[in-house]
Amino acid sequence: MRIAIVGLGLIGGSLALKLSKEGYPVWGISRHRATCQEVLERGALQGCGTDLAQLADFDPQVVVICTPLEQVLVTLAALVPHLSPQTVVSDVGSVKQPIVAPATELWPLFVGGHPMAGKTLQGIQAAEASLFLGRPYVLTPLPQTQPQAVEAMKELVTAVGAEVVLADPERHDQAVAWISHLPVMISAALIAAVGQEEDPDILELARTLASSGFRDTSRVGGGIPQLGLEMARHNQQALLAALRGYQVQLGKIERLIEGERWEELLQVLQRTRQEWQQFRVNQTPS
Amino acid sequence: MRIAIVGLGLIGGSLALKLSKEGYPVWGISRHRATCQEVLERGALQGCGTDLAQLADFDPQVVVICTPLEQVLVTLAALVPHLSPQTVVSDVGSVKQPIVAPATELWPLFVGGHPMAGKTLQGIQAAEASLFLGRPYVLTPLPQTQPQAVEAMKELVTAVGAEVVLADPERHDQAVAWISHLPVMISAALIAAVGQEEDPDILELARTLASSGFRDTSRVGGGIPQLGLEMARHNQQALLAALRGYQVQLGKIERLIEGERWEELLQVLQRTRQEWQQFRVNQTPS
Repeated sequence: MRIAIVGLGLIGGSLALKLSKEGYPVWGISRHRATCQEVLERGALQGCGTDLAQLADFDPQVVVICTPLEQVLVTLAALVPHLSPQTVVSDVGSVKQPIVAPATELWPLFVGGHPMAGKTLQGIQAAEASLFLGRPYVLTPLPQTQPQAVEAMKELVTAVGAEVVLADPERHDQAVAWISHLPVMISAALIAAVGQEEDPDILELARTLASSGFRDTSRVGGGIPQLGLEMARHNQQALLAALRGYQVQLGKIERLIEGERWEELLQVLQRTRQEWQQFRVNQTPS
Repeated sequence: MRIAIVGLGLIGGSLALKLSKEGYPVWGISRHRATCQEVLERGALQGCGTDLAQLADFDPQVVVICTPLEQVLVTLAALVPHLSPQTVVSDVGSVKQPIVAPATELWPLFVGGHPMAGKTLQGIQAAEASLFLGRPYVLTPLPQTQPQAVEAMKELVTAVGAEVVLADPERHDQAVAWISHLPVMISAALIAAVGQEEDPDILELARTLASSGFRDTSRVGGGIPQLGLEMARHNQQALLAALRGYQVQLGKIERLIEGERWEELLQVLQRTRQEWQQFRVNQTPS
């Protein structure tokens, strides 16, 4: 299976590194010649260019578009004239509904993808072959998507060491609103709220005393602003629904504290402790 | 300086281990004979008993009460008949206003204390001499507290490798409401909100896809329920003030997303990223 990666950042670069390590012929496309050079030197590519037209000679069977979310559709449109009819195309965007239907219009063999892997650092320098090991990798085929296109993507996901998770685009977007996009906003609001403290001595003290509990709860709110914006912009409705559901639960906790309903508060905290353990990432390996 | 530790859990046990390592004579008091035995065997104590009256012979110059918050005052009252007039008494409770004034009534040489150190595990088995290294350790003397009492506690704090932070009880409680107690509640609300998702497929998907961002933001909300309850109960007003300030900020973010005011949302996220780095715990060591 010949594979082309368009966009050699953290995700694209890591895919290229791992897939070539697994023996697949991989071609890369980057806007920057220097990036091509770096990935070629790391031995992850058979060839690399800055122009999509260069892919025609390589004739890839799978193309993965690894650009930022906002450039996926325009990249696909530019790519179409250079593809053989049986080429499967995928992307790695963190939101799927705004992408999958229009992309399928442009190219029927499109299969939406979202590897649940990331790092604080971005760019090709941070790329590593092991990025996807054991991580979920969501594929979001539509009912009309041809089975062989999904099969090709399953092979790719398995090859990079990730686990295939199938979901429809809408459910995917609501799920990531809950576990990825909502946490960014509630975490940012925590930092913002502490910053509004009017007594400078209390603010200074809070900054001095902050420990691991604060660090963890506020971490994603201190993350890369552009990524937070992208989530909100492209997953607006699902995120708003999650924010509303969240405020209801927070309001309940507030009323229990106000009303000194300690027994009920204890029950809420006992339940959240139990529920917390049902999230895959919180389960200690046996 | 002869030191007695009353209550040999995670904090009391760690104090005993470190202080004896530093050459101080240390006595322990525990409700459980087995706990005494364990700490004696770890070489951290000159003696240990289950009865406060046994302290009279040791005649400590400093006593640190390391019981749960709710037992500090009753323990102090029971301790008073066995103390020499110059003995300094402190505690390690995470909330200071409800403790410090009444404790000072009972014993004028009382100095409130709060080491900012903890672990997921509790109890003497988790105790370790290095628990306080480099951590802030708050002392909350009142204006009338005698300077030599504060000096004795400063010596103890320095001996365990922690950094003295002085604060009045009220400001301490508001600061920990922001950075310790509020995070527990917003984190618990996140877990509770996801659990309210009505589509079982989305809930299952959210649990499967949850990654480090969710794990960190939800961690303290999945913590020990009894500790969360204790914070809310004894720091009720400061926590409610923090919760209200928090909801204002979250509401602002929600309105920016609703109104598609992306430029302003980006500014908020840029500011929180900057502010996040001003918290001691988030500063990468230079």
